[in-house]
Amino acid sequence: MNRRDFINKAGMTAGGLLLSSHARSFGREDKKLGIALVGLGSYATFQLAPALQDSKLCKLTGIVTGTPEKAEKWSAQYNIPKKNIYNYQNFDQIKDNPDIDIVYVVLPNSMHAEYTIRAARAGKHVICEKPMALNVAECKAMIKACDEAKVHLSVGYRLYFEPHHLEMRRLGTQKIHGGVKMIESSLGFSMADPKVWRLNKALGGGGAIMDLGVYCIQGARRTIGELPEAVTAQGFVRDHNVFKGIYEMVMFQMEFPGGAISNSTTTYTSYIDRLYATTGYKWFSLEPSYNGTGASGNSSEGKISFQTNPYQQTRQMDDFADCILNNRKSEASGEEGMTDLKIIEAIKKAADTGKKVKVSY
Amino acid sequence: MNRRDFINKAGMTAGGLLLSSHARSFGREDKKLGIALVGLGSYATFQLAPALQDSKLCKLTGIVTGTPEKAEKWSAQYNIPKKNIYNYQNFDQIKDNPDIDIVYVVLPNSMHAEYTIRAARAGKHVICEKPMALNVAECKAMIKACDEAKVHLSVGYRLYFEPHHLEMRRLGTQKIHGGVKMIESSLGFSMADPKVWRLNKALGGGGAIMDLGVYCIQGARRTIGELPEAVTAQGFVRDHNVFKGIYEMVMFQMEFPGGAISNSTTTYTSYIDRLYATTGYKWFSLEPSYNGTGASGNSSEGKISFQTNPYQQTRQMDDFADCILNNRKSEASGEEGMTDLKIIEAIKKAADTGKKVKVSY
Repeated sequence: MNRRDFINKAGMTAGGLLLSSHARSFGREDKKLGIALVGLGSYATFQLAPALQDSKLCKLTGIVTGTPEKAEKWSAQYNIPKKNIYNYQNFDQIKDNPDIDIVYVVLPNSMHAEYTIRAARAGKHVICEKPMALNVAECKAMIKACDEAKVHLSVGYRLYFEPHHLEMRRLGTQKIHGGVKMIESSLGFSMADPKVWRLNKALGGGGAIMDLGVYCIQGARRTIGELPEAVTAQGFVRDHNVFKGIYEMVMFQMEFPGGAISNSTTTYTSYIDRLYATTGYKWFSLEPSYNGTGASGNSSEGKISFQTNPYQQTRQMDDFADCILNNRKSEASGEEGMTDLKIIEAIKKAADTGKKVKVSY
Repeated sequence: MNRRDFINKAGMTAGGLLLSSHARSFGREDKKLGIALVGLGSYATFQLAPALQDSKLCKLTGIVTGTPEKAEKWSAQYNIPKKNIYNYQNFDQIKDNPDIDIVYVVLPNSMHAEYTIRAARAGKHVICEKPMALNVAECKAMIKACDEAKVHLSVGYRLYFEPHHLEMRRLGTQKIHGGVKMIESSLGFSMADPKVWRLNKALGGGGAIMDLGVYCIQGARRTIGELPEAVTAQGFVRDHNVFKGIYEMVMFQMEFPGGAISNSTTTYTSYIDRLYATTGYKWFSLEPSYNGTGASGNSSEGKISFQTNPYQQTRQMDDFADCILNNRKSEASGEEGMTDLKIIEAIKKAADTGKKVKVSY
């Protein structure tokens, strides 16, 4: 077993991770883990690649793209050798490349499951962008594949590592200002171009509730520190020229076992970005909350403000590298991703039927 | 016909008001209209009476109370003569009192209809607090009684005259930043004392959706400048010890004919106070929005800030006095109050049935 095999496989079982490994002692300090980005769209281009430049534990060593012009541009910009550039035909050969420890899947939602599973089978650790997949069944298959391959799996939940969001979670779960009774958590922006994949039902899986709903759900459930037991939802389409077969806007309410209720708006029609929690007489909130360029916090007790990295994904990817090096499970695990898909499936069913839907975990 | 008779009756028909009257020419400038407050609870005590001290066109000349100690205290504090103090037994004798032009009904919701109608039959103009009544049928009877008595009727909608809210309405209805596509409009505070009348179904009519829902509905419909055509709603009770037969929290969504959707939370369980409108790429909002101590505005284009009266009700009551003096209909008319009850009835039905409900006007 060589050093890389150890990092990839040591201490992992099919059912999960052993936590007793000491991969760090193998001298990884002097070499960063190599990440290959799969899919060079705007998120990879403007967030992930720049974020990797500040990383302590990772570096961008490979790319997977179907566009030769992008391959050439990225190769020059980030000094990526030809041998580390793959396309969607030869992707599986990545298994033989020792420069690549982690595959980061940044493809349209409909391709998350396939490329996560193929990456796992190639022996690579995987970060998959959110939403983790189109549905719960895909999430299960992805988790199983990573377990079987004994690789780590994480979902691209950058806000799990963002200081303002960690503070909201601390204030909520530790009941610093009392127990949370109500949350408003909303995210939306205008997407008027009907050609983008997010508006395509087959590729995106259902519009704003898939892509933006995850943030609203997490803002509420992680601040409260509980999982919703039931949801109601209302789906709207006003512009049938742009929104075909998907909701333009979904509003949804979640009931938490401790008594809190949340209300959310997700939309591809207009701008909104806010997480607000109230405990009765006190409140704490972020606005903007979920966007990648920085949160701003306020509360009944004063401002909430933290110094942050230029790119939120730097912390996220460094944490995942640390998980691999120290063989601990990521907090932004595949199971967390699947939990959100369970909630999203319930919300979609509630919006389609107009009925309250219980969520099973 | 004496001067007072003219002010009370001139130019009014059973069906509405004639707008050609010139009551001002009768020399009212030198004498303010007299207002009697009916019900000396906290709103009358801490908002209306102080607001009247700054009024240009009105003054506090009478009170109606069932509590002799309150009568004595108010009489001393506001120099109200004994002859202008009534109780609920001798209230109707107010018709013979020339010092009182306007009766302001500040009673629990269940008493709005009765006292508005009795005041009208006593020949007095009426301001009735919001919500106008328990239901649409009562509103109709109130409007009819005021029409028949040829007196003016207004609902205590102080925010119709509040500069920040007028600016939201200007920005929305004139589409200054584009047409409004989505609104979030929420109001809540904690009411833990089960003895207050607002938590009594018979007196309050149904909890937060009656009392606070009116604000959320108006914030949305007046910013958009349209009336909702359909609503969905979700009612919640988590603390059955405090909330008996009424919802603790109601979330509701309104669909507007021009395509906009609103989402609201109303609650007696925790603090929230906000009106947010988004047009796609731009947004404008008030937070706090609805409380009586002052709104604070912000937008994608910069702050929204206006100098305001110490008490919002000063403008409201002066406007009503001006309506009487110039014989024009109040913008905060009985019909406006009834419109909101039509929407509230639809919301209550939607919450009870879980179904979308169309609103008829």
